[in-house]
Amino acid sequence: MFTGLSLLGNKYGSASGAEFYGINPATGEKLEARFVSAGPEDVDRAALLAEEAFPSYRKLSGKERAHFLRTIADNIQAIADAVIERANLETALPVARLQGELARTVNQLRLFADVAEEGSWTGPRIDTALPDRKPLPRPDIRSMLLPIGPVAVFGVSNFPLAFSVAGGDTASALAAGNTVVVKAHPAHPGTSELVGNAVRDSVKACGLHPGVFSLLFDSGIHVGQRLVQHPLIKAVGFTGSLAAGKALMQLCANRPEPIPCFTEMSSSNPVFILPGALQQYEKVAAELTASYTLGAGQFCTKPGLVLLPKSENADKLSEQLRKRAAELPEFSMLTPGIAAHYRSGLEHRAATAGVRVGFESANASAGSKTTAALLETEAADLLSNPALTEEIFGPTTLLVTCKEEKQMLEAARALQGHLTATLLGTEEDLAAHQELIAILERKVGRVIFNGYPTGVEVCHAMVHGGPFPATSDSRVTSVGSMAIFRFARPVCYQNLPQSALPTELKNENPLGVLRMVNGEMTRETIPS
Amino acid sequence: MFTGLSLLGNKYGSASGAEFYGINPATGEKLEARFVSAGPEDVDRAALLAEEAFPSYRKLSGKERAHFLRTIADNIQAIADAVIERANLETALPVARLQGELARTVNQLRLFADVAEEGSWTGPRIDTALPDRKPLPRPDIRSMLLPIGPVAVFGVSNFPLAFSVAGGDTASALAAGNTVVVKAHPAHPGTSELVGNAVRDSVKACGLHPGVFSLLFDSGIHVGQRLVQHPLIKAVGFTGSLAAGKALMQLCANRPEPIPCFTEMSSSNPVFILPGALQQYEKVAAELTASYTLGAGQFCTKPGLVLLPKSENADKLSEQLRKRAAELPEFSMLTPGIAAHYRSGLEHRAATAGVRVGFESANASAGSKTTAALLETEAADLLSNPALTEEIFGPTTLLVTCKEEKQMLEAARALQGHLTATLLGTEEDLAAHQELIAILERKVGRVIFNGYPTGVEVCHAMVHGGPFPATSDSRVTSVGSMAIFRFARPVCYQNLPQSALPTELKNENPLGVLRMVNGEMTRETIPS
Repeated sequence: MFTGLSLLGNKYGSASGAEFYGINPATGEKLEARFVSAGPEDVDRAALLAEEAFPSYRKLSGKERAHFLRTIADNIQAIADAVIERANLETALPVARLQGELARTVNQLRLFADVAEEGSWTGPRIDTALPDRKPLPRPDIRSMLLPIGPVAVFGVSNFPLAFSVAGGDTASALAAGNTVVVKAHPAHPGTSELVGNAVRDSVKACGLHPGVFSLLFDSGIHVGQRLVQHPLIKAVGFTGSLAAGKALMQLCANRPEPIPCFTEMSSSNPVFILPGALQQYEKVAAELTASYTLGAGQFCTKPGLVLLPKSENADKLSEQLRKRAAELPEFSMLTPGIAAHYRSGLEHRAATAGVRVGFESANASAGSKTTAALLETEAADLLSNPALTEEIFGPTTLLVTCKEEKQMLEAARALQGHLTATLLGTEEDLAAHQELIAILERKVGRVIFNGYPTGVEVCHAMVHGGPFPATSDSRVTSVGSMAIFRFARPVCYQNLPQSALPTELKNENPLGVLRMVNGEMTRETIPS
Repeated sequence: MFTGLSLLGNKYGSASGAEFYGINPATGEKLEARFVSAGPEDVDRAALLAEEAFPSYRKLSGKERAHFLRTIADNIQAIADAVIERANLETALPVARLQGELARTVNQLRLFADVAEEGSWTGPRIDTALPDRKPLPRPDIRSMLLPIGPVAVFGVSNFPLAFSVAGGDTASALAAGNTVVVKAHPAHPGTSELVGNAVRDSVKACGLHPGVFSLLFDSGIHVGQRLVQHPLIKAVGFTGSLAAGKALMQLCANRPEPIPCFTEMSSSNPVFILPGALQQYEKVAAELTASYTLGAGQFCTKPGLVLLPKSENADKLSEQLRKRAAELPEFSMLTPGIAAHYRSGLEHRAATAGVRVGFESANASAGSKTTAALLETEAADLLSNPALTEEIFGPTTLLVTCKEEKQMLEAARALQGHLTATLLGTEEDLAAHQELIAILERKVGRVIFNGYPTGVEVCHAMVHGGPFPATSDSRVTSVGSMAIFRFARPVCYQNLPQSALPTELKNENPLGVLRMVNGEMTRETIPS
């Protein structure tokens, strides 16, 4: 069923590299099929193919790109059962979750297909000539977004579908007109091969240059390092750990030609519980526990930091959280390595001055198995030790008691960048905490009221990003239709005849896209 | 008339730093007024003031920001004569040019005022709640662009007004709602102080926090280095040399919190002369000579590389270019250092294998005085020595003869990133050179037909940017209204009550901005 080999366009990569296997985290057993790490020549070949395919792929119309993306979606849906079965074996994520994630993945592809087909995302701008202007005539100037070039995408451990081979990064890069080389995450190689085949088959079915898509396997970091440093690669999309993300940022910044490196890395997603919400401490405890342990706490939006003002209700909430943590089942994390990292992170934090263990299971956990943990501290300790605000990936959160309102603001001000911040409370609470909102707007990409950060809606308005270290560049999002803007750049045409202009910029506006013409937004044609 | 001191909000900086003076490049004489380099404590104070002013400044309405920008424009216009007189002394740029540049500077401020006031630049997006959606309800999600934080702007030697204290970087950063710390260029400190005072007075007249704007003097690089590394600075705008730009990029990438660093650095602006244009060799020679020597060749858009197919007309063009170069007067460059750099660059290139000196003046030049130079080579030599495509700042260009069409494409393919590429020819030439256009679209930010790259229109569609090393980030422009997007980031609000949302995102759309509502662009209100 599996070749275990990298896909270099419509060919296979080297069969002689280091071997590795998928592991079932629930059982620890090695899964069928040997996978082979790509060699340096495979990386170079994939990049070269992506470059060779780029000139024709980028010239496709939005409609043609949309057809390709929808074909990928259809082809993935056609093998959904096999993909979900394998992903479940490789990740221990529940089948229901994987079904949802597969639906999200194909929906994402279709969302970007719609965006590409409609075409206005290219932001055409036209300033028509003013031949009689004094002192100098104004030439005709027209600009729009064009694709940036071959893009390297990294598969992600905690989203084997929605942020891996044909996930959001790949979908948005392809929608913008870029070719893509994916480095598969080694924790789910079989899932990656299945989805990779679906993409390769779509390339063929649409009659595209085979180099539009390649998929590289690697159990280590060499392939990724070589890929982002390859001179033909022009941008990088990555989601993963802070250490890996920072390493990629440095590699991209230190290239002879630096390139944009979009990494989504680390977030504790602080939750601020305001007095009005504390009255419903039982409800909040139930919802919060569900959110911080969802998917074994393996979401980049897991609420890992909960701040609340000292009060009797705060004590009751804390008690409820402890009680609920104790009732939780054992979790299977994505890999033994991630689980080990979780345990050592917990151990280190629990030993930090001022931190109390609210709940930790007496049962020893091993391999990929872990249990939830609730840690508690005071805002003063958090303020004197900012490391306490850092993410621990897994089913744990840190409850922080603030002495008063002022200290809550102080703690908010001291935060680094995060993906989200959440406020729980009444509308009156919110009105009384405008300064807190103003602080948080500068710290995160998404501010949530009376909801939980886990569950990222894939829509037009979504911002899944935030200031460093949440991401490498707070100016973009990796979820939602705005993710397409990462992989495009504006190009302007001065005084070009109609025949030489891209369709989006021609006077007659044959695609009917929304354009800025002499400063006004319109879908109208321009009189010749 | 001059204090010679840095402006830290409404106060002055240290009077005890290293002293320096403006120099008249035309005469070599030291100009009146001693200027004092800012000390480390001045840099820190300016950054802290910018941070202190940010919370109130960013909350101003677009209308209020527009009023502020227009006040700056009015205040600069009110002292136009003094500014132009001083700038002429400090730069040797002709008065007529400086008058044009001052007009451009105030027009830029007014353009960004209009953009800020209209408000749609913030790109509001609203996906309304779908409470009945299965399997999960969709929350209400709304996003828009918000300012990024205090911005460091570097004054530029070759645009003492339009890209200095109140130039395009400052105007776009302020329009987006950011506070600004400018590091003045040491070659025109008096001009900088005059314009700086105009901005400071505007801050006061508009009743803003004085920290909205500060101006730092320095004759060296320490102030700039400290400024971009200051933890409170959140983005950088710079135009200058490749070496300085790369150094700033590295400093920004290596900060504990990396920040976006927008540098515009280096471009040779290749011109491709197609057969149809060669028939008009006399006209082309006249226009090209005017363009490459405009402002003593001190434009980032100077055509420094001219490629043409070998032919009899090509020889005639070359002859005409030589003749015209010989007729040119002596030039005063901006500083003795820039002139020395020009001379050494020329000397080095003239000594490069395959390069012939088409014309170089027999008159020795010294100090800021230089003469034009025409260098010539063959495409084969250019291809074997890519250093020949690098920018030499000053009144020189390199004429490159291509043996055939294929070699012209090869030379285009081998180019690094540049700001512009120009094609001269007939519409038939253009139709026959579609592959050339396709190559150049990937190499530059602006493609020009039958025009010259010097003269950058400040308008909505302009892209003044390009792939590295032209700039640090090809995804943005530093000229035109899109320059505002450098200094903003999207933030999304989930499930916030109307009262807590920014005005642009409220249902009733009181500002009437264009928004994407459930995927459709509209200025309509949303039913509550």
